[in-house]
Amino acid sequence: MKDQLLYEGKAKQVFTVKGDDNLLVLSYKNDATAFNGVKKANFKGKGRYNNLISAKVFDYLAANGVASHFKEALNDTEQLVEKTTIIPLEVVVRNVAAGSITKRIGLEEKTPFQPALVEFFYKEDALGDPLINDEHALFLTDCTQADLEEIKKMARLVNQKLQAFFKEINLQLVDFKLEFGRNKNDEIILSDEVSPDTCRLWDLSTGEKMDKDVFREDLGDLVTVYDHILSRLEAKS
Amino acid sequence: MKDQLLYEGKAKQVFTVKGDDNLLVLSYKNDATAFNGVKKANFKGKGRYNNLISAKVFDYLAANGVASHFKEALNDTEQLVEKTTIIPLEVVVRNVAAGSITKRIGLEEKTPFQPALVEFFYKEDALGDPLINDEHALFLTDCTQADLEEIKKMARLVNQKLQAFFKEINLQLVDFKLEFGRNKNDEIILSDEVSPDTCRLWDLSTGEKMDKDVFREDLGDLVTVYDHILSRLEAKS
Ligand SMILES: Nc1ncnc2c1ncn2[C@@H]1O[C@H](COP(=O)(O)OP(=O)(O)O)[C@@H](O)[C@H]1O
Ligand SMILES: Nc1ncnc2c1ncn2[C@@H]1O[C@H](COP(=O)(O)OP(=O)(O)O)[C@@H](O)[C@H]1O
Ligand SMILES: [Mg+2]
Ligand SMILES: [Mg+2]
Repeated sequence: MKDQLLYEGKAKQVFTVKGDDNLLVLSYKNDATAFNGVKKANFKGKGRYNNLISAKVFDYLAANGVASHFKEALNDTEQLVEKTTIIPLEVVVRNVAAGSITKRIGLEEKTPFQPALVEFFYKEDALGDPLINDEHALFLTDCTQADLEEIKKMARLVNQKLQAFFKEINLQLVDFKLEFGRNKNDEIILSDEVSPDTCRLWDLSTGEKMDKDVFREDLGDLVTVYDHILSRLEAKS
Repeated sequence: MKDQLLYEGKAKQVFTVKGDDNLLVLSYKNDATAFNGVKKANFKGKGRYNNLISAKVFDYLAANGVASHFKEALNDTEQLVEKTTIIPLEVVVRNVAAGSITKRIGLEEKTPFQPALVEFFYKEDALGDPLINDEHALFLTDCTQADLEEIKKMARLVNQKLQAFFKEINLQLVDFKLEFGRNKNDEIILSDEVSPDTCRLWDLSTGEKMDKDVFREDLGDLVTVYDHILSRLEAKS
């Protein structure tokens, strides 16, 4: 099925698919990076957890009216997706203050946002993925204002659906990062991954952090935590 | 006329006015600061230039349909203004890339923006006046989305009028920072100052920088440059 390595990112390899230009295989790596690549490590098994958790998230979203690139998990670490032209925006949705926003605008961790905040960051590693506003996004990407509104609307819908999804396994969805791309029909669809690498998840009973912050803040064993999440998801379905 | 010192900022002192709670006296200082207060100096005569130039700008804007706090210049360094409750946003309008945006999103100085970009920064020295988006502004201030749209519209109108104003004295309006406040009738009006401290102005013939960048980048004698601007404005009227 998978053919040539097209691109290798920080967390995944991207392969072409033999005989179908509209598909890609995403292969999840065991690498973890944080703080714009300054902190790095490799965790045996991590790729498998992110692949399987991301697959479950995308299946749930598809069943709940959110169009995404996801087709199917091919094996433990690989998934088949629709090829898109990625819009260079990291779309962050925040229900509760944590991470960079606490320093940026001076908030206590755990400050709630109601409604949730949607932020755009310009996806450009060389610049450290800076926060931008809508007018910058119009200048830097080929999006129209209507595209930006559609992206924000989809991000809010994903938030609503995933809050319920994670609540079922006793996790609070604190914040998360999405990427969107255009498929061959020029439709904007959810792409990339939704995993504990790209979401902040706090245990609803204990408040424990159960996401990549375990690595960022040296809070414990990342793989054990990711294993708990997958186990809870498998137990529920 | 002026009574008690209410507040001392980096560039101005703010005084109450005897017998009228709705007025203030702004007294322009000779201090210059840059890079969030890290670079500091004092330039004899600077307060006078900013006071007299700002007065001319506000007079022109009033004649062109932009409501502001400005009443009149009282003397060389002081002006009488309507008291407002300042909205803690630094509203920046950019016609051409210069300063922080060149590094933030990776642009060559002089890259044109068409339409002009409007940016909001959260006015909070302790945080270094961070860039924010509309959703942050709704969270951090008492503005509604309609208020934010009104502020952006006024900022664009000011830009249009001031581009013409400065072109008449052979200066290109590169970018500028505005502050808005609410008066006693809860109207949002332009406040603070519009001066070579808060605008980037390039000579249209030579490209020379004729604003606070002369101080930021050690390009020459700031007071001589500000004197040129005031002379050109006085020659035209
Ligand atoms: N459906 C898709 N089509 C094309 N590219 C995609 C798709 N989904 C994700 N990508 C891209 O795959 C790349 C590899 O992912 P990752 O390793 O997370 O990269 P990065 O280091 O940029 O975060 C990213 O640039 C991501 O935007
Ligand atoms: N019309 C007004 N009413 C009340 N405050 C004002 C008005 N115009 C300007 N100000 C405020 O006066 C203060 C003094 O100005 P400045 O020295 O430039 O301060 P800063 O160091 O905050 O930039 C600023 O906080 C500014 O927002
Ligand atoms: Mg990635
Ligand atoms: Mg000021």
